[in-house]
Amino acid sequence: MTFTLAELARRLGAQLTGDGRATINGVAPIETAGPGQLSFLANPKYTEYLKTTRAEAVILAPPINGEPRPEVAAGVSLLAHQNPYHAFLQALSLFHPTPAPPPPGVDRSARIGHKVQLGGRVHVGPNCVIEENVTLDDGAVILAGTYVGASSVVGAESMLGPNVTVLRECTIGKRVRIHPGCVVGSDGFGYAPREGKHEKIPQVGGVTIGDDVELGACVTIDRATMGQTSIGRGTKIDNLVQIAHNVTIGEDCIIISQVGISGSTKIGSHVTLAGQVGIIGHLEIGDNVVVAGQSGISKDLPPGTVWLGSPATEMSHQKRVIVALNSLPETIKHIRALERRIAELEAKLK
Amino acid sequence: MTFTLAELARRLGAQLTGDGRATINGVAPIETAGPGQLSFLANPKYTEYLKTTRAEAVILAPPINGEPRPEVAAGVSLLAHQNPYHAFLQALSLFHPTPAPPPPGVDRSARIGHKVQLGGRVHVGPNCVIEENVTLDDGAVILAGTYVGASSVVGAESMLGPNVTVLRECTIGKRVRIHPGCVVGSDGFGYAPREGKHEKIPQVGGVTIGDDVELGACVTIDRATMGQTSIGRGTKIDNLVQIAHNVTIGEDCIIISQVGISGSTKIGSHVTLAGQVGIIGHLEIGDNVVVAGQSGISKDLPPGTVWLGSPATEMSHQKRVIVALNSLPETIKHIRALERRIAELEAKLK
Amino acid sequence: MTFTLAELARRLGAQLTGDGRATINGVAPIETAGPGQLSFLANPKYTEYLKTTRAEAVILAPPINGEPRPEVAAGVSLLAHQNPYHAFLQALSLFHPTPAPPPPGVDRSARIGHKVQLGGRVHVGPNCVIEENVTLDDGAVILAGTYVGASSVVGAESMLGPNVTVLRECTIGKRVRIHPGCVVGSDGFGYAPREGKHEKIPQVGGVTIGDDVELGACVTIDRATMGQTSIGRGTKIDNLVQIAHNVTIGEDCIIISQVGISGSTKIGSHVTLAGQVGIIGHLEIGDNVVVAGQSGISKDLPPGTVWLGSPATEMSHQKRVIVALNSLPETIKHIRALERRIAELEAKLK
Repeated sequence: MTFTLAELARRLGAQLTGDGRATINGVAPIETAGPGQLSFLANPKYTEYLKTTRAEAVILAPPINGEPRPEVAAGVSLLAHQNPYHAFLQALSLFHPTPAPPPPGVDRSARIGHKVQLGGRVHVGPNCVIEENVTLDDGAVILAGTYVGASSVVGAESMLGPNVTVLRECTIGKRVRIHPGCVVGSDGFGYAPREGKHEKIPQVGGVTIGDDVELGACVTIDRATMGQTSIGRGTKIDNLVQIAHNVTIGEDCIIISQVGISGSTKIGSHVTLAGQVGIIGHLEIGDNVVVAGQSGISKDLPPGTVWLGSPATEMSHQKRVIVALNSLPETIKHIRALERRIAELEAKLK
Repeated sequence: MTFTLAELARRLGAQLTGDGRATINGVAPIETAGPGQLSFLANPKYTEYLKTTRAEAVILAPPINGEPRPEVAAGVSLLAHQNPYHAFLQALSLFHPTPAPPPPGVDRSARIGHKVQLGGRVHVGPNCVIEENVTLDDGAVILAGTYVGASSVVGAESMLGPNVTVLRECTIGKRVRIHPGCVVGSDGFGYAPREGKHEKIPQVGGVTIGDDVELGACVTIDRATMGQTSIGRGTKIDNLVQIAHNVTIGEDCIIISQVGISGSTKIGSHVTLAGQVGIIGHLEIGDNVVVAGQSGISKDLPPGTVWLGSPATEMSHQKRVIVALNSLPETIKHIRALERRIAELEAKLK
Repeated sequence: MTFTLAELARRLGAQLTGDGRATINGVAPIETAGPGQLSFLANPKYTEYLKTTRAEAVILAPPINGEPRPEVAAGVSLLAHQNPYHAFLQALSLFHPTPAPPPPGVDRSARIGHKVQLGGRVHVGPNCVIEENVTLDDGAVILAGTYVGASSVVGAESMLGPNVTVLRECTIGKRVRIHPGCVVGSDGFGYAPREGKHEKIPQVGGVTIGDDVELGACVTIDRATMGQTSIGRGTKIDNLVQIAHNVTIGEDCIIISQVGISGSTKIGSHVTLAGQVGIIGHLEIGDNVVVAGQSGISKDLPPGTVWLGSPATEMSHQKRVIVALNSLPETIKHIRALERRIAELEAKLK
C-alpha cells in the first residue's frame, strides 16, 4: 500500500509542510522509522527523536500560539494535526487494512457434532472440534485446534483461536475475539468441606460473553455454579487474567494482564483494573472505578473512586502513606532524637 | 428432572412449610430464581432477598428459639434444614446428576503409540496423541486435543482435557480432573551460570499427582530436576497456578488462582493458599497453614499459623501493622506537633 | 547407563574415597538416593543428610584446611570436587544424555501450507498446522498440536510444543525451546478511547525471539503495535509470564514465573526479575538490575541496582523500611509514651 504525502494529508485531515509528491509505504515508531515511512509524535517524552528521526514524515500537533516549533531533522516532512495519535491510528489502518477473514468452509479434519447449526460464511479450521447442538452464527471464524463444547453459541463475526477451549453451554456474543490459549467455561473452584476433605460442588451454570468483548491469550473464565459468569459488552481483557465463577463484569471495562477476580464479585461498567490486581469474592465494584497495578481489593468500592495498595486505600491517601512509609526509617531516628531531647528536659527538671 | 416439594423435603431431610404437591424442576440463586425453582439462604447478607424472591421454595435454617422468622415473599414455600447450604448442594446433585462420561472408545483421529496399555471403558477423543508406553487405566477419559507423553500413567476414572498437555513420565492418580490448558511435566526452570550465560540443567525427574486432585484451567506443574514434583491426594488447585520443580504439596490443600510456588518448597497437608500468593524456594510450610491473598512468603511457616502481607507476618500482627500504616501520615503530623511542644519546653528552660 | 565409581571419578575430575569397582546406575537427591545411586552435597543446609543417606556415593567439597570432615553414613563412598554442584550436573548429563530429537519427517496428519520452506531433518508432529510462507530451518522440531502462523520463521534446532501457538510473522531464533501452552504473537492490548468505548488499535508488528531463548509453559508474548516485541539471545523465561506489545528484553536475562511486563518497556541484559514482579509500561530497566519477588516497578531503574517492594525502592532501603514497618505498632505506642512524658514536663512548667 503506497500513498503520496499529499494524498495522506488529505485523508487524515492534516496540514502538510514538505513535498506532497513524496511517497509513503508504511508506518513505524519515530526511533526506527526510515525513508518512505510515516511516524508520529504525541508523547512529549519523545520530542528529542524529532532531531534525529530518519522518517519520511511525522504527524505532530500544530505549534501552540507563540511556541517555537521543535527542531526537526533535515528533510523530514511534517503533517500537523490536532490529535496526532488519532491521525496516526487512521494512517495505521490505511496501511494495514483489517485482513480478510479466512475463507468460508469447514476443514475436512474438523469434527462437527450432531445438530450443529452453521450460519453463512462460517470458517472452521483444521482439527477443530465442534460438539453437538453448537450454533456458529454468520461469519463466525473458528481457527485451528479450537474446541467448542456442546450447546454453546458463537455469535456473528466472532473469531476464536487457534487453540482456544470453550466448554459446554457458553454463549459468546457478536464480534468477540478470543485469543489462543483461552479457556472459557472451566468448572468454578467450589468445594464443600466434609470430614477434612473437599467435596466438589457441581458447577452447572454457564458463561455469557457480550458483544465486542476481546479476551487476550490464556485468559481463564470459569462457569457459574448456577446462573452465569458474565462479561459485559465491549469489555477488553488482557492476557492471563482469571475470572472466577459467578463473577459479573459490566460494559466497556479494561482489565489488564494477570488480574484475578474471585467468585461472585460484581464489577460495574467502565472500570479499569491494572495489571496483577486481585479482588476477593462477593464484592461490588462501582462504575468507573480505577484500581492501580498490584492492588488488593477486599471491600466494596463506590463508583468513580481510584484505589492503590494491598490492601488498597483511595489513591490520594495511599500516595501519602507511601511517602510516609519510605521515610519511616528516618522518622524512627527522629523519634529517638526527640526522646533524647525529652530525657534532657526531664534531667533538667529532676 | 422434576420433584414434588414433598419428595424433595423427604430426600433432603428438611421440614416443609408449603404445598407438598408443587413441582420443582431446577435450582437457582435466590436473586434470579423463578417459579418452579428451588433456592437457598445460608449467608445472612442475602436475607433481604427473601422478601422479593420469586423462587418456588427456599431452603433456610429453622428459626432459632425466640427469633422471629424473617419476612418471606408471598407464595414461597420453605424447607427448614439445619445446614441449608449442604442441603442445597444435595438438591443441586439431584437436579444435575454427574453427566455420564463420554462413551468408551478411541476416536479414529487419535494417535496411540506403541505399547500403550488401555484399561476398560477408556475414552480417547479426537486429535489426542498418546505416546508410547503410556498406561490409561480403567475408565480414564482423555478429551479432544490432549497430549499424553511417553511412559506416563493416567489413573482410573481420571479426566483430562480438552487441550491438556501431560509430558513424558508423569503419574496421574485416580479420579483426577485436569482442566483445559494445563501443562504437567514441563521442564523445571533450572540453569547453571557459566561465563555470564545460563546453561540448562537437565530436568530428568517426573511429576506425581495423587488421587482425587483437581487442576483448574492453565495450571503449570514442572517436572523435577531429579525425583518427583508431587501433589498429594485430594488437593485442589485453581486456575493459572504455577508449581515449580521438586515442589511437594501434601493432601487436601486448597490453592487458589494465580499462586506461585518456587522450586523445592514443601507444603504440608490441609494448607490454604489464597489467590496470588507467592512462595520462594526451599521452604517448609507446615500443615494447616493459611496464607491470605497476595502474601509473599520467604521463610518456613510452622503448622497451624495464619499469614498476611508481603513479606508476610502472622495475620494478627500484620493487621495491626496495616492499621498503623494507614494512619502513618497522621502519625507523622503528630510527631511534628510533639517536636514543637518539645521545642517550646526547651525554650522555656534555656 | 552404568559407570564404575572409578570411571565416574575420572570423568568428573573428582578424588574418590571408597571402592572404585562399585557401580552407579543413576543420580538422586541426597534425601532419597539409594544403593547404586550418586548424590551430591552443595548447600550446607543439607549436611545433616550425610549421616543418614543411603546413596552409594556423594559428591562433596574437599575438606578445607583443618576443618573436620563431616560425619558420613557407613558404606557411602565420597567424591571430592571443588565444585560439587557443577560436578553433579556433569554426572546428571552422563546418566541422562539429551534425548535424541524425534525422527525427521512430517506427520501425515500435519497441515503444511503453501510455500512453506522445510530445512533438513525437520520434524512436524501430529495435528500441527504450519501456515503459508513459514520457514522451518534445519533440525526444527514442531511437536503435536502446535500452530505456526503465516510467514513466521523457526530457527535451526528449535523445539516448539506440544500445543504451542505461534501466530503470523514471528521470528524465532536457533536452539529456542518453547514449552506447551505458550502463545507468541497475540495482539497487543491496545485500544483508543472513542465516545466511552474502546476502539481496537491494529497490531501490525511482530515478535522476534533470539537464539537460545527458553520459554516456560503458558508464557504469553504479544506482537508489537508496529515494529517488534523482542526477546534477546539467551534469555530464559519461566511459566505464565506476560510480555506485552513492544517490550524489548536484552540478553541472558532470567525472568521467573508470573512476571508481567507492560507495553514498550525496555529491559537491559543480564537482568533478573523474580516471581510475580510487575513492571509498568514505557520504562527503561538497566543492565544487571535485580528485582525481588512481587515487587512493583513504576520508574526507570539504573544499571546494576537491586529493588524490592511495591512500589519498589532499592533493596537496602526497603529492608530497613520493612523492619521499621513491622515495629510500627510498637513505635506508635512509644510515641504515645513520649507524649505522656511531654505532657508531664508541660505540667511541671505551667
